[in-house]
Amino acid sequence: METRTEISTLGEFGLIDHLTKNIEFQNASSILGVGDDAAVIDHYGKQTVITTDMLVEGVHFDLMYTPLKHLGYKSVVVNLSDIYAMNAHPTQITLSIAVSNKFSVEALDEFYEGVYAACEKYGVDLIGGDTCSSRMGFVISVTALGEVVPDQFVQRSTAQQGDLICVSGDLGASFLGLTLLERERQIFLENPSIQPDLENEQYIVGRLLKPEARRDITAFLADKEIIPTAMMDISDGLSSDILHICKQSKLGCLLYEEKIPIHEDTRQAAFKFGLDPTACALSGGEDYELLFTIPQSEYDKLVLNEQISVIGYMTGLEEGTHILTKGGNKFKLTAQGWNAFKEQ
Amino acid sequence: METRTEISTLGEFGLIDHLTKNIEFQNASSILGVGDDAAVIDHYGKQTVITTDMLVEGVHFDLMYTPLKHLGYKSVVVNLSDIYAMNAHPTQITLSIAVSNKFSVEALDEFYEGVYAACEKYGVDLIGGDTCSSRMGFVISVTALGEVVPDQFVQRSTAQQGDLICVSGDLGASFLGLTLLERERQIFLENPSIQPDLENEQYIVGRLLKPEARRDITAFLADKEIIPTAMMDISDGLSSDILHICKQSKLGCLLYEEKIPIHEDTRQAAFKFGLDPTACALSGGEDYELLFTIPQSEYDKLVLNEQISVIGYMTGLEEGTHILTKGGNKFKLTAQGWNAFKEQ
Repeated sequence: METRTEISTLGEFGLIDHLTKNIEFQNASSILGVGDDAAVIDHYGKQTVITTDMLVEGVHFDLMYTPLKHLGYKSVVVNLSDIYAMNAHPTQITLSIAVSNKFSVEALDEFYEGVYAACEKYGVDLIGGDTCSSRMGFVISVTALGEVVPDQFVQRSTAQQGDLICVSGDLGASFLGLTLLERERQIFLENPSIQPDLENEQYIVGRLLKPEARRDITAFLADKEIIPTAMMDISDGLSSDILHICKQSKLGCLLYEEKIPIHEDTRQAAFKFGLDPTACALSGGEDYELLFTIPQSEYDKLVLNEQISVIGYMTGLEEGTHILTKGGNKFKLTAQGWNAFKEQ
Repeated sequence: METRTEISTLGEFGLIDHLTKNIEFQNASSILGVGDDAAVIDHYGKQTVITTDMLVEGVHFDLMYTPLKHLGYKSVVVNLSDIYAMNAHPTQITLSIAVSNKFSVEALDEFYEGVYAACEKYGVDLIGGDTCSSRMGFVISVTALGEVVPDQFVQRSTAQQGDLICVSGDLGASFLGLTLLERERQIFLENPSIQPDLENEQYIVGRLLKPEARRDITAFLADKEIIPTAMMDISDGLSSDILHICKQSKLGCLLYEEKIPIHEDTRQAAFKFGLDPTACALSGGEDYELLFTIPQSEYDKLVLNEQISVIGYMTGLEEGTHILTKGGNKFKLTAQGWNAFKEQ
């Protein structure tokens, strides 16, 4: 009898580990491969950073409430976010799509309008791709390349004990945007005559449908001559993502609940849904903010930047990974990040 | 009323043209973008070549007769073929897959075994990717990067009038392999007790399921110091692909039917199915042979290579695109390449 291991027993990251653990590089130019936001290739003068993401209809987006232009924009931005998270500067993308013939050319134009808007805003060139048919919904695959000053790319595995943990912008909004749109979709399916109630929810819906990559943050860090010791973007949720940095850096961490940046509109939306705003910030995902660590000595350089919050510090491995709540309780952090294979 | 143009009215290449025609590069390092086998990026010393392909279950492959290991191998090879077709040397790939939970880890292992076998054979490193769930079948997206000596990459648009048209290996086998397996599938669906009859068909089935990229040909050309004036790989069929070179080089062509290389097993299989072998070679596709043009002065350098056939020459634009049959008749070449959007 053949062994059969269900993918769900490994989870998304376990599966990636499993499938890639035996890679041995054959080219001197392959500097960094699977396991970070992006890979690094040496190109004789500058180093090239490359990253890729796949977005699947019904898994990563629902066309019922995702305008195609926004989808195109977001498909590019989530990849650029990975390039910035390497402390690199994005330069090119390739884009492949599989699309069923229920789409019209006009619909695809709308999608590409968003793609090109993102390219223009972030100064990247679309240099290739593949367009094929699909019998089973819309699939998007983007690969982004970027440049970095040799050996100034920032990994997840290089945080140091005592480093400050910083995060850009605010967290949890995108998850609440999704929660809201899912609720409206249910209401619509049950009673198509009821119009969606999105008033005063522009912020959280905007954060979900049209996220931005934090180019301004890497530019600020470069300007202040701060090179983070570790960095990644928050795509699966703060909790899941800080645990990546801890695991790969072989360290623990302590976060302070009161320091976690949450927008007032996010907080209001959470209360409306009976959810804890901190839980949304920890587990929500799709924030595309930058999560990075810096030596304590660099604190003065960024304390005045209102777009950066210091939310905790890196501890020794034996101290574990914890959050200190406003009430003074200390809880173990667990990865509540999205597990694509368990949900189905 | 909104205009609705069906994708099928454009066809695959028309759609790509339509969607990418307004691209303007923003980075000096973007040397060549959409419209060739791969894009080219300048990297200060060597140039980087990048290409990407998406493979969709039910469109590009049928899991009923495609072993997963072969599928993994082929997913890599078809991209490397594009890198070689640029006269470049592949160095890295990224791989993204969307997979439903009907797949076991063992099944994915099998797929990756093929991926790694191809990486090892061709000396490329898998440096990144994305693994996500799908509710709708198996989707594979591979991006390959390669290096080329500065400005020695070979485009499709640079053939010269009078150049000889060359092709590597032999053509049409893959199409007949597909025809055979599709027939066996139908028979099996109608009567599951009948076992597939693949005897003596290893060659055509092998060419479909486990194609190779012609590294040996680019190595031979380099050894002989031949830089083709134009080159591409044959993925859509000789007819469709030579028309790309003609269109992009603003030239015509004349092919000789008797010169088109067809394997004896391919010829036999064609007769068995009541098909014309030449038609299979012209329109079949998925050969992954190299199609290139050279100045007549280079003819002596490659005439003794049995893996290269000279099949015709480039003419002026006004002379059109023709094939001269064995019977002495001259027919206009038409693109019989696979049109993914019309088939559904």
